[in-house]
Amino acid sequence: MKMLVAGGAGFIGSHLIDALLEENHDVVCIDNFFNGTLQNIDHLREHPRFRFYEQDLCDFETLSDTFRQEQFDFVFHLAANSDIQASVIDPKIEYSNTYGTTFNLLECMRVHGVSKFFFASTSAVYGEKMGVRMDEYSAPLEPISYYGAAKLGSEALISAYSFMNSFSTLIFRFPNVIGPRLTHGVIYDFIKRLRANPKELLILGDGTQAKPYMHVFDLINGIATMKDTLQEGVQLFNIGVETQTTVTRIANIICEMMNLDNVIYNYTGGRGGWRGDVPVFSYSLDKIHSTGWKARWTSDEAVSKTVAEVI
Amino acid sequence: MKMLVAGGAGFIGSHLIDALLEENHDVVCIDNFFNGTLQNIDHLREHPRFRFYEQDLCDFETLSDTFRQEQFDFVFHLAANSDIQASVIDPKIEYSNTYGTTFNLLECMRVHGVSKFFFASTSAVYGEKMGVRMDEYSAPLEPISYYGAAKLGSEALISAYSFMNSFSTLIFRFPNVIGPRLTHGVIYDFIKRLRANPKELLILGDGTQAKPYMHVFDLINGIATMKDTLQEGVQLFNIGVETQTTVTRIANIICEMMNLDNVIYNYTGGRGGWRGDVPVFSYSLDKIHSTGWKARWTSDEAVSKTVAEVI
Repeated sequence: MKMLVAGGAGFIGSHLIDALLEENHDVVCIDNFFNGTLQNIDHLREHPRFRFYEQDLCDFETLSDTFRQEQFDFVFHLAANSDIQASVIDPKIEYSNTYGTTFNLLECMRVHGVSKFFFASTSAVYGEKMGVRMDEYSAPLEPISYYGAAKLGSEALISAYSFMNSFSTLIFRFPNVIGPRLTHGVIYDFIKRLRANPKELLILGDGTQAKPYMHVFDLINGIATMKDTLQEGVQLFNIGVETQTTVTRIANIICEMMNLDNVIYNYTGGRGGWRGDVPVFSYSLDKIHSTGWKARWTSDEAVSKTVAEVI
Repeated sequence: MKMLVAGGAGFIGSHLIDALLEENHDVVCIDNFFNGTLQNIDHLREHPRFRFYEQDLCDFETLSDTFRQEQFDFVFHLAANSDIQASVIDPKIEYSNTYGTTFNLLECMRVHGVSKFFFASTSAVYGEKMGVRMDEYSAPLEPISYYGAAKLGSEALISAYSFMNSFSTLIFRFPNVIGPRLTHGVIYDFIKRLRANPKELLILGDGTQAKPYMHVFDLINGIATMKDTLQEGVQLFNIGVETQTTVTRIANIICEMMNLDNVIYNYTGGRGGWRGDVPVFSYSLDKIHSTGWKARWTSDEAVSKTVAEVI
């Protein structure tokens, strides 16, 4: 099949491309290098079944031309603003890069008759539900970040487009994903800070914030597996790992693997990193586990593996 | 207080302006006359506490200038594409006029420090839930129209903006609303068709589609009442009437009030009017009723009252 990976030069998108090429699909990547990098796809430059367009998905006419030319069978939408803190300062980033890209892709699918769709959603659609174990049928959904809001809005659009145009759609609500080619987030920040100053480490919050971290290879395996079970309508799954890792534990793992002793942790204090960050989070994976699929690595294992891969 | 009514020249917005002026507030109306009309606000032309801007809410810079100039205390957002069938053909209408207008208003509130917000949402966010009685905590929300999707996306944005900026927000999910100044919908269409041809009436579907119809005076009374109970965070309510009216019953009421006998009904057949229309719908009003507020007229009464007002 001919696959479009939108946002394919990004951290997760580029791994998905590797996996789809491995399965002998033809893969077209569209990216504008806002968050993605040429480096992430540079190893594919000579690949006979890979093609790259440097395009902004917000430009509908250009995107529509590419759809007309390429005649895709399947669209994987992994393009979004991935820097949540940036949109705290300027929410317009989410309006165009997260919601707007979804709209343009769906509209191109409608106009050009593509019906298979994968969407990278997020656990951030749940908002801050302290102590509640959220599953795919939990409500109300009250995102507290502009990013989570734009992703939930995208899910709503997908619901309508899928119904109106008989799309077969798979939505995964991603957890925190880590692994090679990581470009931001707590692991990335800590390594960068410790390289600059191996004696002290600034930690946002009080360090007890715990989140499930999933290794990108596990996530890609989940997408590759579940895409083959596509059926008409929308199938929505939480994906992730059952375990969690605290921020302080991440710092400990990194210091250990970087062979740093007696690093002084300077906590900013408080409950979360920044307004809109969700400090403690847990959600149900029963639905995806009931299909027989399960992640290979725990949260702690994913953190250790990632640190080993990127330091 | 100084109130902005966005979409104030529309059917519902113009009635809200009347009510707010009645309560001695200063009212500013912004409308681009896409769905609204000058006729709806013409009676306010000389009112000392009313001011009108013909502006497109999609133009952020102009809107921001108006916010700077007027220093609003409270924003009522009733601007949206109100012609759901038009966006079936061109979903971009919902992207800009329903979702985009919400984004620009919220962003102007954030930038200019306005914190009181009312949003006109819709029962269409629930999608097609046959036989399920939806309340404000029901899930999943799977809108089947682009209109419902854009409204649900707006609710998600409002959740994030309200959290991030400590807004006090009231959201009502509207039913079908009818009354004076109605510009579209089944009552409007039937009267128009019967004026053109009093012998026959084309009816989309099989006529058994039943929906709750609420009189606009009841809706406005609900908004005016609940706006005074505003508190920080988002309060979300279904609003409507417990009863429903079938399409055939509406035809009967109109024929009777227009003194037409033996009109032949030509049904197109099928379950609904068009793809994306929700044929049978019922949702819980327990939450708003628990505040002590209740609509005055039943669905049938609202239909009869409206027909009397508009024929």
